[in-house]
Amino acid sequence: MKFKNPPVNSLSLELLTEFVISLEKLENDKTFRGVILSSDCPGVFSAGLDLTEMCGRNPAHYAEYWKAVQELWLRLYLSNLVLIAAISGACPAGGCLISLTCDYRVLADNPKCLIGLNETLLGIIAPFWFRDTLVNTIGHRAAERALQLGLLFPPAEALQVGMVDQVVPEDQVQSTALSVMAQWMAIPDHARQLTKNMMRKPTVDRLLKQRDADIQNFVSFISRDSIQKSLQMYLEKLKQKKG
Amino acid sequence: MKFKNPPVNSLSLELLTEFVISLEKLENDKTFRGVILSSDCPGVFSAGLDLTEMCGRNPAHYAEYWKAVQELWLRLYLSNLVLIAAISGACPAGGCLISLTCDYRVLADNPKCLIGLNETLLGIIAPFWFRDTLVNTIGHRAAERALQLGLLFPPAEALQVGMVDQVVPEDQVQSTALSVMAQWMAIPDHARQLTKNMMRKPTVDRLLKQRDADIQNFVSFISRDSIQKSLQMYLEKLKQKKG
Amino acid sequence: MKFKNPPVNSLSLELLTEFVISLEKLENDKTFRGVILSSDCPGVFSAGLDLTEMCGRNPAHYAEYWKAVQELWLRLYLSNLVLIAAISGACPAGGCLISLTCDYRVLADNPKCLIGLNETLLGIIAPFWFRDTLVNTIGHRAAERALQLGLLFPPAEALQVGMVDQVVPEDQVQSTALSVMAQWMAIPDHARQLTKNMMRKPTVDRLLKQRDADIQNFVSFISRDSIQKSLQMYLEKLKQKKG
Repeated sequence: MKFKNPPVNSLSLELLTEFVISLEKLENDKTFRGVILSSDCPGVFSAGLDLTEMCGRNPAHYAEYWKAVQELWLRLYLSNLVLIAAISGACPAGGCLISLTCDYRVLADNPKCLIGLNETLLGIIAPFWFRDTLVNTIGHRAAERALQLGLLFPPAEALQVGMVDQVVPEDQVQSTALSVMAQWMAIPDHARQLTKNMMRKPTVDRLLKQRDADIQNFVSFISRDSIQKSLQMYLEKLKQKKG
Repeated sequence: MKFKNPPVNSLSLELLTEFVISLEKLENDKTFRGVILSSDCPGVFSAGLDLTEMCGRNPAHYAEYWKAVQELWLRLYLSNLVLIAAISGACPAGGCLISLTCDYRVLADNPKCLIGLNETLLGIIAPFWFRDTLVNTIGHRAAERALQLGLLFPPAEALQVGMVDQVVPEDQVQSTALSVMAQWMAIPDHARQLTKNMMRKPTVDRLLKQRDADIQNFVSFISRDSIQKSLQMYLEKLKQKKG
Repeated sequence: MKFKNPPVNSLSLELLTEFVISLEKLENDKTFRGVILSSDCPGVFSAGLDLTEMCGRNPAHYAEYWKAVQELWLRLYLSNLVLIAAISGACPAGGCLISLTCDYRVLADNPKCLIGLNETLLGIIAPFWFRDTLVNTIGHRAAERALQLGLLFPPAEALQVGMVDQVVPEDQVQSTALSVMAQWMAIPDHARQLTKNMMRKPTVDRLLKQRDADIQNFVSFISRDSIQKSLQMYLEKLKQKKG
């Protein structure tokens, strides 16, 4: 029942596609009822969307990439599986979004485990369905402040604002996720799935109604010279850090 | 101003009908401005919907029963009266729903006073207007978790999540409800009623728009063999416990 | 970057008009990126709407006044500027509304600094866009109770319910507001503004769709004999207090 992201935890187009296919297989395999999402990359749950997919490419590529991001969210947010995020590393932007689609979030009590939708810090904007997912989780006011400031919450604050459900010592993240899973497994699947669907379908429908428009918005926004420049500068910085 | 449920606190069709009629009378009697809802059945506020009305009957009966449940909710949720729930016993499912329609909830500090919409535990699903009432009270995220897991909150947790407004020692539930009532009575009726209406009407309108469809949904869901079987098993268990 | 309300802090038609014009100038002046709203009237942030504009006048005046109130809210709630409320005095009704349109609220830790939408206490009703602004800030349940009871929260409760973001000693309100402003200034303007717009536009659109109807509602409500009488009584009381 444990699912691991491949070594590189930034969400490349390839990773997104594989992720969705794996998820579909698990959904259709009746022996699987729940999945614990965790990372095998030390220090990072997922670095989020892959900026190299959003920088220096052509509009068709941007459109394809964005459609894959949408697809992952759609699959995860309405998954019939119980999804539990076991977060033992940094969890910014797209990584945070993935955790927010889960039914429960366990975060390691380590000051490096920052979690949040920090898009504004890069000069970009979380799309409306990132917003909806966050508002559904922490409410309108907290989401408004967090999104505008691009806040990355340390564990205690993440717990207080409701970004995660539980903060535990790092070596207990997996075991906690497992015992939480046992609690969710105790509920009749059919009733739980219909209830989950009832809670989340209106949010999903909002994207489905305007999925193409959302892709067009993304493509035209990300293609702007000013956005490309600031992404390039950010990528340069990252490279220098690594080098 | 005090209203008592008849001895059997499960919501039979007869009880629902009488409840709605009593409520209408009180609404139309200008000498009544508020009602404290409490139970004269020790240990239970209300056991919720009456499973014997939902099990082994014909579709017409299910439809009639569900319409009566809707009617009670519609009356309570938009009542012009100040409604205060004084809860000194268990408060699951439909009992919880009734308390959620009140303007204020006082709960006895007794570990047996569990409160929540625990439908999934019986393999059934809270309908969308139960969901809306809960989301309006405790927010989207807490409602999502509570509804999926069928959580029954003990007093301290019920207070923390916002399911109730106050937890007091068992012998102070009535006196607290009375002093809270005095606070609400101090507000000009007309302004208070219009404000309450403004807060709740959009939620009520959602059911009114699709009331018949909601009845049809209920009838077809409850008539399923699998649901009837699991309700029958549950009722058997209850009988064995009593015997 | 600091903005002061003129000496009389009740929102007269003249003040509203000037306020909107000043705000427009600041929005268009690219050297201004944020504004701290505070009061130079000791003990009061703003007394709220000017009852003398709503009492003993003709319908055309009421309509003009209400349109100006709407206009202020529309400008403030979607302002591209970072707005921070530094509240060192009482903050009822319209004063509270202004603070709720800000991006952050700092309140002085003084029991006289009460904050809330207390319209029902005067026998009047907060319009639906006051409601929406409050629900966006403190959630549905807390808003329902606060609006019905016309609650004015003292600092500790205001912080707990989420009506304000921070409570500090009175002499630190301005300095705290300034350091909060520095935090908001650190975010790229464009991304922050688009994100703010995404969070708030749906709420603004609800008023824009029915702006004229809302004016008509206000005019017919405020013109009622019963409302005029209760406002006159309230104004008499205020005069006697002063005298």
